[in-house]
Amino acid sequence: MVYVALISYTPDPERTIAAAARVSASPAGASQLMQKLTPQAVDRLLTRLISSGHLSVFEHASFTFAIEGISRVTSHQLVRHRMASYTQQSQRYVSLKDFDYITPATIGAKHDLKARYQEMVHAAHSLYLEMLDAGIPAEDARYVLPQAGETKLVMTMNARELIHVCALRLCLRAQWEIVELFEKVKAEVERVAPRLGAELKPKCYRLGYCDEAVSCGIFPTAAEIAERKTKELTSGKG
Amino acid sequence: MVYVALISYTPDPERTIAAAARVSASPAGASQLMQKLTPQAVDRLLTRLISSGHLSVFEHASFTFAIEGISRVTSHQLVRHRMASYTQQSQRYVSLKDFDYITPATIGAKHDLKARYQEMVHAAHSLYLEMLDAGIPAEDARYVLPQAGETKLVMTMNARELIHVCALRLCLRAQWEIVELFEKVKAEVERVAPRLGAELKPKCYRLGYCDEAVSCGIFPTAAEIAERKTKELTSGKG
Amino acid sequence: MVYVALISYTPDPERTIAAAARVSASPAGASQLMQKLTPQAVDRLLTRLISSGHLSVFEHASFTFAIEGISRVTSHQLVRHRMASYTQQSQRYVSLKDFDYITPATIGAKHDLKARYQEMVHAAHSLYLEMLDAGIPAEDARYVLPQAGETKLVMTMNARELIHVCALRLCLRAQWEIVELFEKVKAEVERVAPRLGAELKPKCYRLGYCDEAVSCGIFPTAAEIAERKTKELTSGKG
Amino acid sequence: MVYVALISYTPDPERTIAAAARVSASPAGASQLMQKLTPQAVDRLLTRLISSGHLSVFEHASFTFAIEGISRVTSHQLVRHRMASYTQQSQRYVSLKDFDYITPATIGAKHDLKARYQEMVHAAHSLYLEMLDAGIPAEDARYVLPQAGETKLVMTMNARELIHVCALRLCLRAQWEIVELFEKVKAEVERVAPRLGAELKPKCYRLGYCDEAVSCGIFPTAAEIAERKTKELTSGKG
Repeated sequence: MVYVALISYTPDPERTIAAAARVSASPAGASQLMQKLTPQAVDRLLTRLISSGHLSVFEHASFTFAIEGISRVTSHQLVRHRMASYTQQSQRYVSLKDFDYITPATIGAKHDLKARYQEMVHAAHSLYLEMLDAGIPAEDARYVLPQAGETKLVMTMNARELIHVCALRLCLRAQWEIVELFEKVKAEVERVAPRLGAELKPKCYRLGYCDEAVSCGIFPTAAEIAERKTKELTSGKG
Repeated sequence: MVYVALISYTPDPERTIAAAARVSASPAGASQLMQKLTPQAVDRLLTRLISSGHLSVFEHASFTFAIEGISRVTSHQLVRHRMASYTQQSQRYVSLKDFDYITPATIGAKHDLKARYQEMVHAAHSLYLEMLDAGIPAEDARYVLPQAGETKLVMTMNARELIHVCALRLCLRAQWEIVELFEKVKAEVERVAPRLGAELKPKCYRLGYCDEAVSCGIFPTAAEIAERKTKELTSGKG
Repeated sequence: MVYVALISYTPDPERTIAAAARVSASPAGASQLMQKLTPQAVDRLLTRLISSGHLSVFEHASFTFAIEGISRVTSHQLVRHRMASYTQQSQRYVSLKDFDYITPATIGAKHDLKARYQEMVHAAHSLYLEMLDAGIPAEDARYVLPQAGETKLVMTMNARELIHVCALRLCLRAQWEIVELFEKVKAEVERVAPRLGAELKPKCYRLGYCDEAVSCGIFPTAAEIAERKTKELTSGKG
Repeated sequence: MVYVALISYTPDPERTIAAAARVSASPAGASQLMQKLTPQAVDRLLTRLISSGHLSVFEHASFTFAIEGISRVTSHQLVRHRMASYTQQSQRYVSLKDFDYITPATIGAKHDLKARYQEMVHAAHSLYLEMLDAGIPAEDARYVLPQAGETKLVMTMNARELIHVCALRLCLRAQWEIVELFEKVKAEVERVAPRLGAELKPKCYRLGYCDEAVSCGIFPTAAEIAERKTKELTSGKG
């Protein structure tokens, strides 16, 4: 079960972003601008920055999360986002006496398969423990462990990258576990920075269409939009 | 079994690096410098750049490798190096009819454990195939697969990052599988850029000591060096 | 006068990108895929990758340019793009006996201003030379030099970043000198990788509208599009 | 005159780094670790991380600075450090009615040259203003402005990059203006994170020798150390 806690972040993140943005087109310096900006001005400025794609200023605010209860399947996907910092629990240096793991809902829904899935995971973990007892190092014994195994990590990501990653990972075509992870990341950000949190959304909301091969239904694909237009033109003629 | 093939790279990588370096302190441009540099001048320049730590110019040459036969344990470690580009075989979109996997040598050496390890891996893969047949999507069925499973990927890394990553991953304190991987990466680079290839070596060769807690024996740790010096001074007095 | 020469690049860049992309969803490895892909398959694949936004594979091809004849105004803008490698002629270590500089066309068009601009630049350079003679280090004397002064550099950028930077810097709202620079960069890429070169274009071509405050005329802004739609609806009612 | 103010930073930066580091080798999660770590434990852990080169965890704390009063010479050097975020006052969108500028001490020390330097800078700024009046856009008029002109910016850098950049830029072989800048950056960090601040120091303190061509005197170069050893051995024989 995914657990996400925001353990640290740039204080007053939206104002920090707004003050930085103002420096670009103002004769005043940032210290001064930090004080003068009203909440309304911050809000208006963030809206304008996003609609015009001036996203680099969003790098000035960053967020550090404690993440637990995700599978190694998902942590492997997660760390592919390179514009962030990760520190992950090591399977080389930590021996896993207990083995927490994820059961995908599709498997959980089939009673018989679920039982056999759980047995298999437990059997693999038992062999892992036995190998440790036989003197196999943890770093080697772990090869037998299923990818379902849970991991813990600390992740720091700036607001620009959060916008980018959420665009990809809140898309319902992403795998369900990483969608859940970023829904919780979004909730944590929204708690302390509501304006920014509102911008953490799937890419289709920004594009106005779905750029995947098959749409989840929220927005039509570009091909479907083109088809509709053709139909409208044709039916208009008749 | 790790397989590494250099499938593409910046042609004449050492000369490209040297020409770029010359631009920094010369009134001439790079096109001109590319032609004028002799192999000896390239060699001397690279030596000087490395000893003085001017490594940014090494970014101008990059190398693209096809990598196969590494476990998901190792690919998860590998992609933590963020200054590189990776494209990995997806377990979401590829169903693994066959399941190639790695057996660590420590397990392989114990006859009984090896047999049970292999049985466990095969049992997990059988359940995976059965789940596919029962309509479980590949992206979910894979949760039962052991981390020993092999993966394929394409990796592009520039020469500066290769020097950095090899310093860490050719260290014998790194896990054996990633050491093997970078030994083959080094061999591939050496084939086309011997001067550069020679710089792909564990960090201790550069530091002159081992900065790990326990040394593998090539170099003493900083603490051991300090201890020896104290002894020398003491015995000298006696 | 901007001069751009492609001095090195990943051989067969489009095929390298396509082979990497195939690895993601194929049981075959990259070496094999490199050989099997026809030019038509490469072309189709690149088109699909771009339309679906799968741009990370474009990082596997990179391009190294010798750039000369750009002002320090422009080099300062250029190096703000961080996903690239630069080696620039140093004003600390190179004394500028001759001083090549850029004259903006708006100044060049006004006969009197142009003359005074040139006089000022020459006077500044004369004082620079005099300071060198008086023993002032080049790194300090250069403070008097105008930003118009030309610089040389070597830049390596991968194809993904080239697509991104051209989207911003071929926009006619970017400053003319950096537009010129990237028009030449595009021409050099097109020469060796026409399919990729065709993707180096201003952001509006991808967005379908202009996201700047005022459009250059190629595409209307989002606000103008909304306004037109309102008018169409209103006039339709009449 | 360089002005640096820390306007925002990860609260409790050293504890955040330490908690992240502990996650790597502990069965506990980060939230828990944040609370349990004593100041002494934090201190000891940071010392160990630095001596063993485990620097990635230092990325979890970042610092945002308002920087003013540096020349465009220095801002051009500064933004070459790519693992950081910058927002700089634009000379395209801000017309510089007043022109603040830097006078290098070597020029300031020579009475006659100083006067002529100042005259030249003022003359260039006057022509700039005149060009604005004549309708030349600020983005073009600025070509005549000397590089001595001051700029303002906001910079966000994480602790790992601060350690790296200070190693290079606090070296007395770096240019005096950027040395001054990072001395003030260090002072600001030391104020809120003394343990970390103490690690912001020139590279020679870490290397134990100077890797520049000529030493400033703090540490001998590697060549000088080798020479001394030879002499000691020789004189010992005599």
